[in-house]
Amino acid sequence: MFKQRGYDGTSMLDIARALDIHKSSLYHHISGKEQILADAVQSALGALLGVLDERRATTGPPGRRLRHVLWRTVEIMVDQLDEVTVLLRVRGNTATERWAMERRREFDRRVQELVAEAQREGEVRADLDPALVTRLLFGMSNSVTEWYQPGRGLDAGDLAGAIIAICFDGLAHGPLDGEGDGRA
Amino acid sequence: MFKQRGYDGTSMLDIARALDIHKSSLYHHISGKEQILADAVQSALGALLGVLDERRATTGPPGRRLRHVLWRTVEIMVDQLDEVTVLLRVRGNTATERWAMERRREFDRRVQELVAEAQREGEVRADLDPALVTRLLFGMSNSVTEWYQPGRGLDAGDLAGAIIAICFDGLAHGPLDGEGDGRA
Repeated sequence: MFKQRGYDGTSMLDIARALDIHKSSLYHHISGKEQILADAVQSALGALLGVLDERRATTGPPGRRLRHVLWRTVEIMVDQLDEVTVLLRVRGNTATERWAMERRREFDRRVQELVAEAQREGEVRADLDPALVTRLLFGMSNSVTEWYQPGRGLDAGDLAGAIIAICFDGLAHGPLDGEGDGRA
Repeated sequence: MFKQRGYDGTSMLDIARALDIHKSSLYHHISGKEQILADAVQSALGALLGVLDERRATTGPPGRRLRHVLWRTVEIMVDQLDEVTVLLRVRGNTATERWAMERRREFDRRVQELVAEAQREGEVRADLDPALVTRLLFGMSNSVTEWYQPGRGLDAGDLAGAIIAICFDGLAHGPLDGEGDGRA
């Protein structure tokens, strides 16, 4: 409902009606709609930040670690499509939203450091600002939440593979030019 | 205001207050908030669809035409940031919004044909679905509306150049590996 109507446009009464229970019963289970938002963004952020501590994100050449983080981000997006979509639409109107935005910025900062490290190692072209590269990479991968529909042929691996192929090897280069998808 | 509060969350009274005029005076100028939305999306769509008829989008190798379309799309986005942002957030709740969505789909279809043509000519790697490539390209370029702030150092050329460099040449390839930005 938060995806369809927006968080501000959804009331506890709307939620109770959708679940076909009384509003008072709903309050026995949750303290309010902010708790639903908090549960969703905590789940998405926990998964995303967890990726940065995975072995493949912490050991090996930084270019390969960056590919791994991007691949896993897309997997989490497909796996928790609703939660990640809600997280990406947070605008900072409540304490929970501001907390979520701060954690998102932390995630972005750590990925940006990985981009910069890969540039220093010569694995990623160094003529582009690492903050801009990070924004554009996530711009492409996050856009998946705008149109992806599960069970319509494309799985997480197809999506992640295409995003990594375009961003790392480029559309002008064939599949044999690059280093693969970093999963080998 | 549509960007900040959402179209549904903005009333004619809000608009009149922001302009410091009476609501009845506002109705002398416009028929309603749907007219403001219509003006914004018509302006953005007119500019975007106009690109597809530019000489550089209709003549020359399809890979170069595709780069030109992407470059010009980013220029229009920066030039009409509010209008394009409103267009991208349209969800189909009114007749105007459904009309805008249909025109966006037309734009996407025509770019998708250009991607397929560039693949047939061997200028763009052919191992990726052209519809998916089109979605991901616009996913990256459209994301600019989420964070771009005019006058903070980055101009349209910087943005378009970075997007084309990443998407066509790839992060793993240096600036000398590719064919440039297609502006030569």
